[in-house]
Amino acid sequence: MYLTQGLHRSLQATPNATATIFKDRKRTFAEHGERIARLAGALQGLGVHAGDRVAILSMNSDRYAEYLLAVPWAGAAVNPVNIRWSPAEVAYSLNDSDTHVLLIDDPFVPMAPILLEKAPGLSILIHCGDGATPEGMLSYEDLVAGSDPVGDAYRSGDDLAGVYYTGGTTGFPKGVMLSHTNFMASGLGTIATGELLKVGSILLHAAPMFHLADLAAWCGATILGGTHLMVPFFEPTSVFKAIAEHRPTDVLLVPTMIQILVDHPDSNNYDLSSMARMLYGGSSISEGVLNRTKARLPGMRMTQAYGQTEAAPVITLLLPDDHEGNRMRSGGRAAPHCQVAILDLDGNEVRTGDVGEVCAKGANVMQGYWNNPEQSAQALRGGWLHTGDLGYLDDEGFVYVVDRLKDMIITAGENVYSAEVENALSKHPAVASSAVIGVPDDYYGERVHAVVVLAPGHRATAEELQIFCKELIAGYKVPRSFEFPEALPMSGAGKILKRSLRERYAAAQG
Amino acid sequence: MYLTQGLHRSLQATPNATATIFKDRKRTFAEHGERIARLAGALQGLGVHAGDRVAILSMNSDRYAEYLLAVPWAGAAVNPVNIRWSPAEVAYSLNDSDTHVLLIDDPFVPMAPILLEKAPGLSILIHCGDGATPEGMLSYEDLVAGSDPVGDAYRSGDDLAGVYYTGGTTGFPKGVMLSHTNFMASGLGTIATGELLKVGSILLHAAPMFHLADLAAWCGATILGGTHLMVPFFEPTSVFKAIAEHRPTDVLLVPTMIQILVDHPDSNNYDLSSMARMLYGGSSISEGVLNRTKARLPGMRMTQAYGQTEAAPVITLLLPDDHEGNRMRSGGRAAPHCQVAILDLDGNEVRTGDVGEVCAKGANVMQGYWNNPEQSAQALRGGWLHTGDLGYLDDEGFVYVVDRLKDMIITAGENVYSAEVENALSKHPAVASSAVIGVPDDYYGERVHAVVVLAPGHRATAEELQIFCKELIAGYKVPRSFEFPEALPMSGAGKILKRSLRERYAAAQG
Repeated sequence: MYLTQGLHRSLQATPNATATIFKDRKRTFAEHGERIARLAGALQGLGVHAGDRVAILSMNSDRYAEYLLAVPWAGAAVNPVNIRWSPAEVAYSLNDSDTHVLLIDDPFVPMAPILLEKAPGLSILIHCGDGATPEGMLSYEDLVAGSDPVGDAYRSGDDLAGVYYTGGTTGFPKGVMLSHTNFMASGLGTIATGELLKVGSILLHAAPMFHLADLAAWCGATILGGTHLMVPFFEPTSVFKAIAEHRPTDVLLVPTMIQILVDHPDSNNYDLSSMARMLYGGSSISEGVLNRTKARLPGMRMTQAYGQTEAAPVITLLLPDDHEGNRMRSGGRAAPHCQVAILDLDGNEVRTGDVGEVCAKGANVMQGYWNNPEQSAQALRGGWLHTGDLGYLDDEGFVYVVDRLKDMIITAGENVYSAEVENALSKHPAVASSAVIGVPDDYYGERVHAVVVLAPGHRATAEELQIFCKELIAGYKVPRSFEFPEALPMSGAGKILKRSLRERYAAAQG
Repeated sequence: MYLTQGLHRSLQATPNATATIFKDRKRTFAEHGERIARLAGALQGLGVHAGDRVAILSMNSDRYAEYLLAVPWAGAAVNPVNIRWSPAEVAYSLNDSDTHVLLIDDPFVPMAPILLEKAPGLSILIHCGDGATPEGMLSYEDLVAGSDPVGDAYRSGDDLAGVYYTGGTTGFPKGVMLSHTNFMASGLGTIATGELLKVGSILLHAAPMFHLADLAAWCGATILGGTHLMVPFFEPTSVFKAIAEHRPTDVLLVPTMIQILVDHPDSNNYDLSSMARMLYGGSSISEGVLNRTKARLPGMRMTQAYGQTEAAPVITLLLPDDHEGNRMRSGGRAAPHCQVAILDLDGNEVRTGDVGEVCAKGANVMQGYWNNPEQSAQALRGGWLHTGDLGYLDDEGFVYVVDRLKDMIITAGENVYSAEVENALSKHPAVASSAVIGVPDDYYGERVHAVVVLAPGHRATAEELQIFCKELIAGYKVPRSFEFPEALPMSGAGKILKRSLRERYAAAQG
């Protein structure tokens, strides 16, 4: 299996159909394929060899879609950089992956001098924005225009497709090595449900394309010869306009984005009726948002995916017809390309309903972490990918994630899942957001500690919140100490950085 | 990827759903899984080791479905034997594949002594019929009841899933080695079209299960946790009754079977309305049969698959909406899991519309022929599977197969596709069936020679048929000599054996 397969089929079957739409540019598959073969030629001309990493730091665009296929076409491996990272984080990932070539978009040009300084291996910058090409960089369009097309290197199977750095809520980012088979297994398995993407779909890329969630949708649409419609980044009005004008059928969103769209005052001013299917991931969806979405787009089929970069990324799918009752809190069941199991610390399956680590097995599971055999062996021990998530299975195979393993608190010998405590706190009207962590405690070993951001204009004391929580959860789960900062530290992907909360707490204790 | 993946998911998600239906037996996934784990234990107890071949010679049954998963569960490889073969052919395949264990069904029990004599490696016969277990054989049910369940050996990826002997219209059968990835790629890719099998489908096995066409459907249904409904063999009334009683949603048939069903006088006496999707293969469907099928089952979506055992087996798919006009004669376009190309003898792609060899590339392409590195290298040269079929592509990627490469006749320097000549002959009312071959000729090199079976009560001379053909095809394609036997030699899969016609002709010439 290989990522360029879908392009070859489209060139044969639908050369004149639309491959990409971005701003005022529309390109056919014939044009798309020609540009990819030329860009691949340019990369080879720049000294990119088989298996070399080629990075991109860019907003969504048609060139992003070209990059994703030109790199394997040239025989190399992609390295899509998180656009929310600091220069230090970007430089870390470029150094760690030994990447010499970076495609860089306009908003990130100011970052270039720092990257060149901090990532000494970086020798070639290709400017892929629509603005003027800065000095010292190569122009993407000049490279495409000035290079001869080359043949597909046909990287496939276990060949490295890319190194994808994960968020880093628990330390330095790790480079996840995914093969062509990893990607294609997840892509084929996900569309095999019949609930996502169809032959001839138009896929809207509104979530950032560097992220595995959007890349998974990209892979599925590419397999089926679909059209890629890009907006540079998620912004409600551009999304509405893109839908009304280009009538996409499929989209990948995170629940926050869905909520922003359906609750937007302009939502009813646009024709969104083309949307047939939506894949969402990152978290469960609240019943309120689901119902409002269904009311606004009654025909649309919604599927949740649960997974992680290490699983390329889909592990479970909550199919449209399973969106009901208690299952709304579930991530769904094992996808057609893999298996899921809940394992204890010894690697044995726990009983139905018992909490353990969510583990996955299948052709979608990563080759390992770049340059990190120890963590690779740890994550893949016993033939299972250990996700680091805690969860349980019900008796129909639905997976419920309760917490990150590292966020579980052991207090006086009892396991406390921070997510459950946060859920209780969230029901208090004064709580805007919260993070619950374990902090060292002489008596309890670890103590349940809550970091709470209050809603504007609201007040609440620690005692009030403790009394409130006691109504909802067991006494040992109720936070014994509190702090009330203005905001919580967030990762690039919008996740709360509990690690930095723990460090901050430790530092404050001196 | 591994064939047992779907079973693991079903055991987790739908343990109480129906896995198999055969005669008066219905088994849940929990029962199905338990029996598979026990049969796997029995096989291991009988000395079956990792990678060993375990053969089956059986009509369709629930035990066939158990065998297909128990063998990989035990770590071994399947070898499903063609039920239409002579004892000599069966023995050849058992010897060639070095198979020691054979599951054997009631109708084939009389063949056992010959097999034991001609296949000296064969040491264990497991009787899998519903009759009494013959002396010297082990009872399938006793083995299942008397063995402890074992854990899945988790054969996967490039591990051998089975050796599948191909028909042998062109010589001795060859053992096609298919890996787990080969099978799963074809299965996932085929269902990824959204036109075949759904979550919860009930698949009717009416075509023989040893054949890759039915096994491909079996694989897809297994991936999606579907129910397998078996009839022992294709017979219209049992098929009608099974559909009316068990309401299957999907079926794999060959066009001849479709024609028999829709033209059957009892067709309207049964409720066939559950049939949602039909996959057919082996040949194109005539417009007449298609229209009659559509009239009888208006809601059913029909997809044609073109492929071969070596491609596990699907190469192209003609989707329901593409069943129109000229495309009805096409095998469709490259399936989501592979690529197709028409290559000339030097391995270069020919121009659109030009005839060459149909070739395929993808994770579905076999590992090679068992014990036959030379023919493997020949079939897989240049990174493409050479199908041995001649065909062309139109400008939208539809593949039209015109002939088998070995059946093409070169007469006075001109290429003649036997299929085209046979097609012309078939339009004459006196012609029941025909086979056109090239025979040695001093003047023409090869001469177009027709072997014609006349329809009962009809007469026609060579001269009449020549005059008739000249109205339809170019003069150099018209057969220069004829013979009129009572019948044509057929292979087990119902294909005309042109090789034996050529041999017969040569022998007759002395």
